[in-house]
Amino acid sequence: MSLLVTGTVAFDAIETPFGKTDKIIGGAATYISLAASYFTKDVGLIAVVGDDFPQEYIDLLNSKNINTDGLQVKHGEKSFFWSGRYFNDMNSRETLITELNVLADFDPIVPASQSSPDYLMLGNLSPQVQSTLISRLAKQPKLVVMDTMNFWMDIALEDLKKTLKMVDVLTINDEEARQLSGEYSLLKASRVIRDMGPQYLIIKKGEHGALLFHGNQVFSAPAMLLEDVFDPTGAGDTFAGGFIGWLAYTDDISFENMKRAIVYGSAMASFCVEKFGTDNILNIDENQLLQRVKAFRELSYVEML
Amino acid sequence: MSLLVTGTVAFDAIETPFGKTDKIIGGAATYISLAASYFTKDVGLIAVVGDDFPQEYIDLLNSKNINTDGLQVKHGEKSFFWSGRYFNDMNSRETLITELNVLADFDPIVPASQSSPDYLMLGNLSPQVQSTLISRLAKQPKLVVMDTMNFWMDIALEDLKKTLKMVDVLTINDEEARQLSGEYSLLKASRVIRDMGPQYLIIKKGEHGALLFHGNQVFSAPAMLLEDVFDPTGAGDTFAGGFIGWLAYTDDISFENMKRAIVYGSAMASFCVEKFGTDNILNIDENQLLQRVKAFRELSYVEML
Repeated sequence: MSLLVTGTVAFDAIETPFGKTDKIIGGAATYISLAASYFTKDVGLIAVVGDDFPQEYIDLLNSKNINTDGLQVKHGEKSFFWSGRYFNDMNSRETLITELNVLADFDPIVPASQSSPDYLMLGNLSPQVQSTLISRLAKQPKLVVMDTMNFWMDIALEDLKKTLKMVDVLTINDEEARQLSGEYSLLKASRVIRDMGPQYLIIKKGEHGALLFHGNQVFSAPAMLLEDVFDPTGAGDTFAGGFIGWLAYTDDISFENMKRAIVYGSAMASFCVEKFGTDNILNIDENQLLQRVKAFRELSYVEML
Repeated sequence: MSLLVTGTVAFDAIETPFGKTDKIIGGAATYISLAASYFTKDVGLIAVVGDDFPQEYIDLLNSKNINTDGLQVKHGEKSFFWSGRYFNDMNSRETLITELNVLADFDPIVPASQSSPDYLMLGNLSPQVQSTLISRLAKQPKLVVMDTMNFWMDIALEDLKKTLKMVDVLTINDEEARQLSGEYSLLKASRVIRDMGPQYLIIKKGEHGALLFHGNQVFSAPAMLLEDVFDPTGAGDTFAGGFIGWLAYTDDISFENMKRAIVYGSAMASFCVEKFGTDNILNIDENQLLQRVKAFRELSYVEML
């Protein structure tokens, strides 16, 4: 099934206790589409970059069967740039530089050939841009998944609430779920948020895994235990890409299959954090992925008497 | 199988965002033995209280088949008293009052009739008292489980390391595992700590569940999602009591069965936090417990294709 992805395509410069990078390829839509490309070969990308964005990066995306017809290249402008430093615990970070550049007036134009995707993944962007993209589609996708962050809750809450009414699945982290709902209990928070629109809610808990809520059902997935989390950048987006990639591949949006999608997303994210940036998700072989999914499964499997 | 439990039996006064209590029955050994009493009817308690400790509380323990022959009542002295206040997030608390009283010179005397337990649970106490108790047993138990806390890592690290060599299973929380090992990665921390003695390590993560490590095996158990965590006091001890209670009942210390024990421990702990103090673990009926264990199982169960 076809999958359309939007979000940032950008430069990142990352510093962690393990080292630092120069400007490398980053952005939510980059991680999402790369991760999804392991599952479905029909991925389209709607994003914007400046003419400083190297053709080799675009070639790289194309080599993964990611269609970049919807990637706008703005001449005379610069790509979005983010630089950040992670602290020792890897759970907190400080932003050193944010240069919006081309992102400041991003108008998501959808090529006619991509205006009827079966699945839509809205990576983190202004909720107003996210809703604009939905309104430009020729038909309603089977499933719309949206990622967002506390920044938009702080500065664009009304836009965010408007966009929430248009999506099926929301992915946010636990702190953001508490902020958006005003409830500390994640069970209560999940109800408040689902009353805002999305029928499904995924709460990402980093090293503690993820929760999926729908109706009265809950699924709790562990996170893989790793020797080291080398660089957490893009983990949430890689998770989302694996999640929607699996759904688009299987074309099954039942709760049971979403649970599997969460396992695949978690496995992809666990690869992501083992190296800097996208380094480790560019060349995962199928056996590696299946081994990790198996390890995930075993991690929480218990046979009761 | 017979289970011997040591730890504090005490008064607690608790304040949470939901309310506050007067002096109520508390202490690690109280929660452990109450939780274990649901699984095995042969529980002995080694602890000390002052003559301010009400006979009705001792009668209560006895009514749960907890043998209090090893509960020393010191005349003219007062029981251990702890008072604390939990903050809104329930993950942090401040200690308002700690009065050691009888605990200051607790000498764990084991009645001859209880000196050959099949299972031994060392609740949080000075590691020197914990090792003294082990040395006074007539024979080595099948399994020794030890709980401890950061306080002893701060003030009695050498005693703690000595005691760790005498135990099979250690239960601590994630921050304590990081402190004790000097490693941030819990996978690495688990190896360092198991090199100190215990072959099994349980890392308690509160609302994020628990991890069990042994050899190259890991099990990750979720925590139950609750409407509210009303009072977290005693949750870790109730978990430990359910864990060792299940092992003593089934008399099976395989890794597979320890995974089940963690599910039973987690289920018991989830009841504990729903009301103040021991209120909610005094009268759990078997159906309620089985329902909760089933809910636990379903929470993390996923059938992969």
